[in-house]
Amino acid sequence: MATIKEVAKLAGVSVATVSRTLNKNGYVSENAREKVEAAIKELEYYPNEVARSLFQKTSKMIGLLLPDISNPYFPLLMKGIEESAREHGYSIILGNVEEGSEAGNDYMTLFAQQNVAGVLSAVENTLSHQQAMPVVMLDRVMEVDDYAVYTNDVKGGILAAQAIVDRDPGKVVIIAGPKTVPGAIDRLIGVLSVLNPTNVEYEIVETQSFSIKEAEVTAKEIFRRYGKIDSVIASNDLFALAVMKEAQRRGSRVPEDIQVIGYDNIPFSQLVYPGLTTISQPAFQVGYQAADLLVRRIKQKDIQNKRIKLDPELVVRDSLREREEK
Amino acid sequence: MATIKEVAKLAGVSVATVSRTLNKNGYVSENAREKVEAAIKELEYYPNEVARSLFQKTSKMIGLLLPDISNPYFPLLMKGIEESAREHGYSIILGNVEEGSEAGNDYMTLFAQQNVAGVLSAVENTLSHQQAMPVVMLDRVMEVDDYAVYTNDVKGGILAAQAIVDRDPGKVVIIAGPKTVPGAIDRLIGVLSVLNPTNVEYEIVETQSFSIKEAEVTAKEIFRRYGKIDSVIASNDLFALAVMKEAQRRGSRVPEDIQVIGYDNIPFSQLVYPGLTTISQPAFQVGYQAADLLVRRIKQKDIQNKRIKLDPELVVRDSLREREEK
Repeated sequence: MATIKEVAKLAGVSVATVSRTLNKNGYVSENAREKVEAAIKELEYYPNEVARSLFQKTSKMIGLLLPDISNPYFPLLMKGIEESAREHGYSIILGNVEEGSEAGNDYMTLFAQQNVAGVLSAVENTLSHQQAMPVVMLDRVMEVDDYAVYTNDVKGGILAAQAIVDRDPGKVVIIAGPKTVPGAIDRLIGVLSVLNPTNVEYEIVETQSFSIKEAEVTAKEIFRRYGKIDSVIASNDLFALAVMKEAQRRGSRVPEDIQVIGYDNIPFSQLVYPGLTTISQPAFQVGYQAADLLVRRIKQKDIQNKRIKLDPELVVRDSLREREEK
Repeated sequence: MATIKEVAKLAGVSVATVSRTLNKNGYVSENAREKVEAAIKELEYYPNEVARSLFQKTSKMIGLLLPDISNPYFPLLMKGIEESAREHGYSIILGNVEEGSEAGNDYMTLFAQQNVAGVLSAVENTLSHQQAMPVVMLDRVMEVDDYAVYTNDVKGGILAAQAIVDRDPGKVVIIAGPKTVPGAIDRLIGVLSVLNPTNVEYEIVETQSFSIKEAEVTAKEIFRRYGKIDSVIASNDLFALAVMKEAQRRGSRVPEDIQVIGYDNIPFSQLVYPGLTTISQPAFQVGYQAADLLVRRIKQKDIQNKRIKLDPELVVRDSLREREEK
């Protein structure tokens, strides 16, 4: 592999000039810059990022903590993170933390060892081992988190409940996500703020996770427990799909006999029959803006808005009944 | 943050002894090792991985190239990779390459700059910029790839076609994946090896990708083109789900009027009604074994089997008709 000396020799300039060109600091004449770039190309010289990061004390890497990459919501988030990080010249080290496990702390140690420039985390209670390592929380955000990008889940809950109330609700079952997940509580608050002032009859079922496994168990359980159900407001699309499947398996028609609304707008919600009506979280945007915010922190740029809250939207497909004319 | 000198001082040993303990080379007495480990714990000393990687010329990082993380097959693969890498003390730098894009080469350059110890790639035609950077291909593997972990897709095709032939096939449509993906060709070879010796009538539809978008377009197109279809062998679960949805939308019953088999066994294939019968790829195992093989290459261990081929399995749910008694 070529060295910086060989680049300087071929370009006919000093090593210091190559270094200034690479680091984009100090004056380099147009002519010299072109020669250096040509020499770099010819010799296939890659300035060693490891050496650079040792010198600069931080690397061009961002650590990413996600709670469960097999939930299709997170790959969408990851795409946004990756696109923004790449635009800023950063790459991503992945840490996948199973829901409820302690691996998050191990990863934070690993990230510190690898001198990452900062951390993006969607795992609750992520602690920064070093004050020097900036953290931006995304998606699962608590009141105490200084820097955060997330969806307005109260509004999401309101949108979901309003869509049900507008469409002959009957008896409603609300599947609420785990209390440990901040967004899940906000959604429930939003849902109840719509239902409580009405005389709609509802039941709340609280779950421990957002996983497929629990979704299947819960779907069977609610029919066993409540018998005839007219509407379901689910905590995420996986739970909504599981309820639709169980209803169909029991011979009910969706949406005629039972209507179902999800949350997330994962890609599969459009691949089922009938298509799932759901609340679309701007997952790509949450990821994109979180990575952007983190890079601004790393570069110590002026930041106007430390906590960015994005709006969800109702996506109407075919799992709800027709809207009633008022 | 603590330094190696402070560790040595607290443990009452020399810096060289701490270094030998950390690097696990050279003699260190049991007693000294225990003192060093206690001091490391007390001072929360993290040996700097960046400094270490500069010294050793490679890092404890593996670059990972994936074609499309929003396809739910890949997160399963990623989980296997991550678990195995973590067991070996390696972390993963992620490179997501949209299908058909040129970003793969950019990532390989980036990985080289970051001194990754090796690369895992599921992107066809991944080139190693440096002979020094070992690559193991996974999932999408060509004949020319020396080190590779993948599924026996010919066998997968045979299992899928046999399941259809055993169940009153009628007119069959085979949706074949892109010719550029090696596994897609193997599956088609497997399918045809079963259908050709019979007098089952079939049509082949070739697609350009494995994406949801093309799945939806293709599902509509095959009904327009062929009218009455009795069986569909899909290139992956996304295409199978799209066909099931379109059939149901047109008022057909699955499996009575049309039966459908998928490929991959993504988590959602069990969340639709009726549940999708499919070919299960051992995605977690492919990822796990590929990371293991790569680490063995990095450590220059003796390797018996450079190309590891894993067997797929038929997973029977409810999207196929009852098997005919022979």
